[in-house]
Amino acid sequence: MAQKMNQKVLLARRPRGMPVHEDFRWVEEEISQPAFGEVLVKTLYLSVDPYMRGRMSDRKSYVPPYQLDEVVQGGVVGKVIQSRSKEFQEGDFVLGNYGWQTYAVTSEDELTRIDPDLAPISTALGVLGMPGLTAYFGLLEIGQPKPGETVVISGAAGAVGMTAGQIAKIKGCRVVGIAGSDQKTAYLVNELGFDGAINYKSSKSLRNDLEQVCPNGVDIYYDNVGGEISDQVLPLLNHQARIPLCGQISLYNLEKDIGPRIQPRLLITSAMMKGFIVSDYVDKFDQGLKQLAEWVKTGWLKYRENVIEGFEHTVDAFLGLFKGENIGKQLVRVSDR
Amino acid sequence: MAQKMNQKVLLARRPRGMPVHEDFRWVEEEISQPAFGEVLVKTLYLSVDPYMRGRMSDRKSYVPPYQLDEVVQGGVVGKVIQSRSKEFQEGDFVLGNYGWQTYAVTSEDELTRIDPDLAPISTALGVLGMPGLTAYFGLLEIGQPKPGETVVISGAAGAVGMTAGQIAKIKGCRVVGIAGSDQKTAYLVNELGFDGAINYKSSKSLRNDLEQVCPNGVDIYYDNVGGEISDQVLPLLNHQARIPLCGQISLYNLEKDIGPRIQPRLLITSAMMKGFIVSDYVDKFDQGLKQLAEWVKTGWLKYRENVIEGFEHTVDAFLGLFKGENIGKQLVRVSDR
Repeated sequence: MAQKMNQKVLLARRPRGMPVHEDFRWVEEEISQPAFGEVLVKTLYLSVDPYMRGRMSDRKSYVPPYQLDEVVQGGVVGKVIQSRSKEFQEGDFVLGNYGWQTYAVTSEDELTRIDPDLAPISTALGVLGMPGLTAYFGLLEIGQPKPGETVVISGAAGAVGMTAGQIAKIKGCRVVGIAGSDQKTAYLVNELGFDGAINYKSSKSLRNDLEQVCPNGVDIYYDNVGGEISDQVLPLLNHQARIPLCGQISLYNLEKDIGPRIQPRLLITSAMMKGFIVSDYVDKFDQGLKQLAEWVKTGWLKYRENVIEGFEHTVDAFLGLFKGENIGKQLVRVSDR
Repeated sequence: MAQKMNQKVLLARRPRGMPVHEDFRWVEEEISQPAFGEVLVKTLYLSVDPYMRGRMSDRKSYVPPYQLDEVVQGGVVGKVIQSRSKEFQEGDFVLGNYGWQTYAVTSEDELTRIDPDLAPISTALGVLGMPGLTAYFGLLEIGQPKPGETVVISGAAGAVGMTAGQIAKIKGCRVVGIAGSDQKTAYLVNELGFDGAINYKSSKSLRNDLEQVCPNGVDIYYDNVGGEISDQVLPLLNHQARIPLCGQISLYNLEKDIGPRIQPRLLITSAMMKGFIVSDYVDKFDQGLKQLAEWVKTGWLKYRENVIEGFEHTVDAFLGLFKGENIGKQLVRVSDR
């Protein structure tokens, strides 16, 4: 095999507001050789996720900020093409977190083997990966859904939102999604069985539309977006409502943000709001993945991927997240073998 | 016994912003006779509480709004002076909720007997009543304190705050109170054993002072006041912090309120915020009261009352709550026997 070059995307500077191409730098380098206990992985799929925006700032957060001039870290599905590890053989499919690059030499400890017979390997970045587990634990552990309850999900057509909504359906809830296009809302209702969906961009009054489609109020608000959409949901909370705070994508690119204080609303409804990150539940990952895989296999849980072809479109794919372009999990296919 | 007149305070109109005397009307009426199953109670102590402000508005809340031209409802300790009930005898001390009036004919079902040998009868409106239970359940059920954790309490010199802080000390926590005068902060530290206390009115930077006295961050923020004080506490939250939302007294008189959105902060810390009202825990009241009484008896839990003499000062006592005049439970002594 002729030595190929590794292409990678570095964080060139910290974005201010909405990220732009100039915040990133593309470089090429020779691929190094794996040492003992290491493998060389070729990237097949890489993931772009909203949470990455947070790591591009240098604010203290639940994960450390990205370093400048380093590869943008994130989930990757790849194939082992050279192994000096007893754990992995050439040809193994693996899940890694080495980020936006076409090859990587990485320690065996940093990889997880993917079973290609269980489901398409790309699902390890989606419904059977971090987004699926995020939906699973946020909804079940924090949301504690009970049959007949009303669940509202913002960012409902994203990878996490559509999974959370379907799990709520499996648990017997009435599920309403909020999304940003008619195509998305139609998908949620017609393909995924949501009981209702609202296009917040075309809605004349989100509050009124929510009241119409949630006549019994809201018991769980699974929040992926925050901001003004949440402002319209919170007045509908029922007594003892639960709010898993999963993401706040509408705010990630704001330098400053103010809005109505929510504490009085939580106070008068005895509502509970809890932020989380999927790693809070690391001890239960195996159980969660097993359940998700079973639901996927039986067809109760559907997934959808939005795949952009070509490593060179990685930054475009990332920027697209903030324009609401994707339905389902946003991936970049770097290579097909 | 010569027939006396019942004096009562009605809600004359709904306050806008800070309540004023003109929002209330004083009336006098003849005392009626108890029917079968009813008793006539003479008011000894009555309670004024911050939550009453909420009921004076006609917004939907956890308790229904007060009706205009009706007596302002609230907790009362009284003495049975005429009984047509098998449950109560003349001379019994009772806890009721018939509000701001000097006498009341009330059903036996609406009263609870108070044991005057257990503790002074006025404590049924404070440390061994609603405020005590509020502190107890908010801190223990929502806060889940663990030894060594740091607990910050706003409104710390109020009836609820000082009780919550002492319970946190009993549970082995480091406790810091925020209050509005040097007299209050000195009381918290010197008399109640708080590890620190900050006078937010004289503090040049509440944030800096908090950082100094909470070098390990904040694990529990027991919030009685909300608003700008909370804005300064939330940046100090540790991972998996808990925020029992007990009151928001700083906001009760605002018509509109905006501030920094708190969801991103809760998100990055996996923090949990939960509103509550003491009645959420009604099934555990007996257990809570038993524990509180035991702590009071052993001296582990101290209490303090701020007693204003005379029914005619009831509205003054209520308005004083919003000026931060009281240390401990604010009561009006209507009669001493």
